[in-house]
Amino acid sequence: MSKTVNVAQYLFTRLHQLGVRSVHGVPGDYTIRALDFVKPAGLQWIGNCNELNAGYAADGYARVKGISALFTTYGVGELSTINAVAGSYAEYAPVIHIVGTPKRSAYISNVVVHHSLGDGNLRVMAEIYKKFTCAQASLFKPENAPELIDAALEHCVKESRPVYIELPSDVVGARVSAHRLHTPLNTSTPSNIAIEEKEIVDVVLERLYSAKQPFILVDGLTAADGIVDEVNEFVRPFGTLDFTDYTESADLALVFSPLFSDTNTQGWSAVPRKEISIVFHRNHLEIGETRTHKLGNKSLIQALLNHLDFTKVRSQSPKATALPSIRGLAKSLAPPNPEAPIDQDTFYLRISSFFRPKDIIICANGTPLAGSRDFVLPPDTKLIASSIWLSVGHMLPATQGASLAQHELGTGGRTILFEGDGSFQATAQELSTIIRYKLDVTIFLISNDGYTFERLIHGPEEEYNDIARWNYLLAPEIFGAPKCGSYEVETHDVGTWGELQSVLDSEKFQNGKGLKMVNVRMGRLDINTKFKEALKLAGQQLM
Amino acid sequence: MSKTVNVAQYLFTRLHQLGVRSVHGVPGDYTIRALDFVKPAGLQWIGNCNELNAGYAADGYARVKGISALFTTYGVGELSTINAVAGSYAEYAPVIHIVGTPKRSAYISNVVVHHSLGDGNLRVMAEIYKKFTCAQASLFKPENAPELIDAALEHCVKESRPVYIELPSDVVGARVSAHRLHTPLNTSTPSNIAIEEKEIVDVVLERLYSAKQPFILVDGLTAADGIVDEVNEFVRPFGTLDFTDYTESADLALVFSPLFSDTNTQGWSAVPRKEISIVFHRNHLEIGETRTHKLGNKSLIQALLNHLDFTKVRSQSPKATALPSIRGLAKSLAPPNPEAPIDQDTFYLRISSFFRPKDIIICANGTPLAGSRDFVLPPDTKLIASSIWLSVGHMLPATQGASLAQHELGTGGRTILFEGDGSFQATAQELSTIIRYKLDVTIFLISNDGYTFERLIHGPEEEYNDIARWNYLLAPEIFGAPKCGSYEVETHDVGTWGELQSVLDSEKFQNGKGLKMVNVRMGRLDINTKFKEALKLAGQQLM
Repeated sequence: MSKTVNVAQYLFTRLHQLGVRSVHGVPGDYTIRALDFVKPAGLQWIGNCNELNAGYAADGYARVKGISALFTTYGVGELSTINAVAGSYAEYAPVIHIVGTPKRSAYISNVVVHHSLGDGNLRVMAEIYKKFTCAQASLFKPENAPELIDAALEHCVKESRPVYIELPSDVVGARVSAHRLHTPLNTSTPSNIAIEEKEIVDVVLERLYSAKQPFILVDGLTAADGIVDEVNEFVRPFGTLDFTDYTESADLALVFSPLFSDTNTQGWSAVPRKEISIVFHRNHLEIGETRTHKLGNKSLIQALLNHLDFTKVRSQSPKATALPSIRGLAKSLAPPNPEAPIDQDTFYLRISSFFRPKDIIICANGTPLAGSRDFVLPPDTKLIASSIWLSVGHMLPATQGASLAQHELGTGGRTILFEGDGSFQATAQELSTIIRYKLDVTIFLISNDGYTFERLIHGPEEEYNDIARWNYLLAPEIFGAPKCGSYEVETHDVGTWGELQSVLDSEKFQNGKGLKMVNVRMGRLDINTKFKEALKLAGQQLM
Repeated sequence: MSKTVNVAQYLFTRLHQLGVRSVHGVPGDYTIRALDFVKPAGLQWIGNCNELNAGYAADGYARVKGISALFTTYGVGELSTINAVAGSYAEYAPVIHIVGTPKRSAYISNVVVHHSLGDGNLRVMAEIYKKFTCAQASLFKPENAPELIDAALEHCVKESRPVYIELPSDVVGARVSAHRLHTPLNTSTPSNIAIEEKEIVDVVLERLYSAKQPFILVDGLTAADGIVDEVNEFVRPFGTLDFTDYTESADLALVFSPLFSDTNTQGWSAVPRKEISIVFHRNHLEIGETRTHKLGNKSLIQALLNHLDFTKVRSQSPKATALPSIRGLAKSLAPPNPEAPIDQDTFYLRISSFFRPKDIIICANGTPLAGSRDFVLPPDTKLIASSIWLSVGHMLPATQGASLAQHELGTGGRTILFEGDGSFQATAQELSTIIRYKLDVTIFLISNDGYTFERLIHGPEEEYNDIARWNYLLAPEIFGAPKCGSYEVETHDVGTWGELQSVLDSEKFQNGKGLKMVNVRMGRLDINTKFKEALKLAGQQLM
């Protein structure tokens, strides 16, 4: 490596060191000079159809790879994508958002440049982004750019949240010292003080050993907190503990990485009572009403595992062993009538038999998110769903990013999206990005003629919950699917259980290669019964 | 009218009084209760495919009707659309942005609700919107809601810029007094002090009468400033004054409603020198280096017209009369070879013969915006183009809004969009909204295989300026175009002048009814020669 590099090279080299292999975005006047340095740094440029979609795609990529990069232009680009970045912030997806800005002289002279508000103030966008990113680096002085870049990237990984990097177009080519590049970024979480950690371990284990009816709740931030392996190891010996009866009379709840909101807790009814809870947050623990000082949960859980004597835990209390096994649930359903229409109440449980280890399963907001609570997932699958941000259209572009990340990781498995028709309309063009980069994606499009989720909250027959009627299965063709060649596209239209089954039975369909798109017709007011109740509770409280 | 109405009824009644007939948006959990009151107030709900597009559509509607309404949900909805609202702010389009928010109790209790960042702070969105709207109304207290609504709406019209109205879902149904509804909103601009105005009139006329070579520059904010009629009347007797030779040696420039930025002034080279300029801004005048105090330009121009003695103006100086007539320009071109490919350099001038009085002509950012400088427009046409914000994908949804507004006004004329392929990909789904609401739109899609505009700035052959290859003319079919019925759809693919001419010659095509879509194939590096120079200048300065 030469002794100096330019600022863009520095930045992109760092991205590569962190494991980024693709950069999502849309080119713009203030980014194109920097774009020249993407490919030479070993990164692939993924040109999305618009910036909001690029932001969603970067979010999906981050959720699979643990890091992601998004590159947009000043003003119009960064504002178009801001809703996606805010979602990544709310749900702890580590996205590095680079913004190409005008030359530095424009900031000083207050001239009216395009993509600005016309008032000469070019700082307004960066100010706003402070609300949606955990760190910012404004690269106005090349000499400290490496330091600022490093600090921002370390924050991104450590906090698992987006950061904002402002790159003026005349800084792109400025030479800076390359010496920092020889030292890897420090992205490890600081270790806990051993004596403090041990004290907490003792408290938790004492509570666990004395509990008559403990249960474990694993929530949405487990992956972002980087404790999936630890939690899996922790949970494994405890068997299948689930179902409200049991949890409501429990005397201990171990809660990992919660992200509780109105909708994902059935209006807070699913949140365990404080007095029985020990809650593991990323950087602290809550024991009942008490909150510890800073304490990294990854290390803490590892320490717990080291000390845990499973024989002392009453997990196999009579009440627990009497619970049915989740894995047997699908078999407990009577086989469907092949002529009968597909229904929301059993679709998600039945389709679970299609899943395989290593699959990434993605649920769009709306009825798929509601239904996905019934999924029975094989080991080593990854479920991606929004827990609090719930932005319509998020998941098709996120699927593009997730599939790409899965491909780069080379771990095998398929990327499977459960999409709603309303969601699809919001970001449909990103199907063309999936096709353009030949990504492997299976899509089940739940076609129910509108915003069924909203219909159930209010206005079931109102026009405002209707959507335009599309010919969804034409989408691959307009969006450039090749007529022949190595990238295969198949589409199917199903309305009954029999039609669905014959698609699922096809080996070619099962391989998950290329683009598979199934239009699954369902009732316009059909929604998962259990979820209806949740929606009602949440609706009364806040909407 | 009853003595009380609920807050939503109050708001929508006021919109109707201002001339709004359609509300653009996407339904969401926090908006749907209020949506029930849209239709009863005599307003049509236009459900767009996503919120950003709804914002662009509302912008287009505002540019035609002088007022517009946009309704989105809290957090995700308002952030998705923020780039469109910021563009309306930068370019002075009066859009009333209503945001349906959670119940008021959620703001006080700091609970974690969906569509929020999860930190309990629900005020963050409203804070941000202060940067992109000229007035805000937070309707937390029903008793003062009518007053706040009225103030915000008056600001919107008077300043011709977006305003932000925050409507908590539990305020929607609160009863308020209807008495203010009997008094129309005061949207008239305050009149100038007669004596002051007369002084300025004398100064301007004295300059005008003594000028040997005056010229008039009419810029982008003329419509927003509400002075189209006045400026037309002012300009009419002056004949066709144009072309750089003449303007550069001029000794007086009357400049109306400028919005000068780097790109639309060829890197400021087109801005007349200060010492010869009299510049009419919305609320003040600049005479050389001097800036008057507050002075409404509409009234001022009317006063000028009242006093103007045209015979005293040297408009028909030998230099001016020697200029060719703009209207004759197209005829001065040799007829194209029917077999020859269509080129950017003459396309925009040649297609001008297709335009008719009352047409609305809309230019997407990119090559159409560059080429549109060559348009020769018949009287009473309206040209919509972005001057500073220049957001990719803006104009297809804006066309939906503009066509709807044109239809509501009943003024006749067609809505004609010149779209780029990169732009089309950004917001393509809004074609389905055009079809769904049976709007009359003619689209010329300039198909040149990528971001040609960006290619010309940098990286002509770089992959990052490529886009996915779509089958554009399939778009109407996937987006729900009816196979038969009263709404007609026609598509055409043209690559040569002959092919284009045979489409333009068809009477059915000329009527502008239903959806007409022409895929116009052009060279991937072809761009208007004159514009290339402008781009180069702007590029050197800021990018």
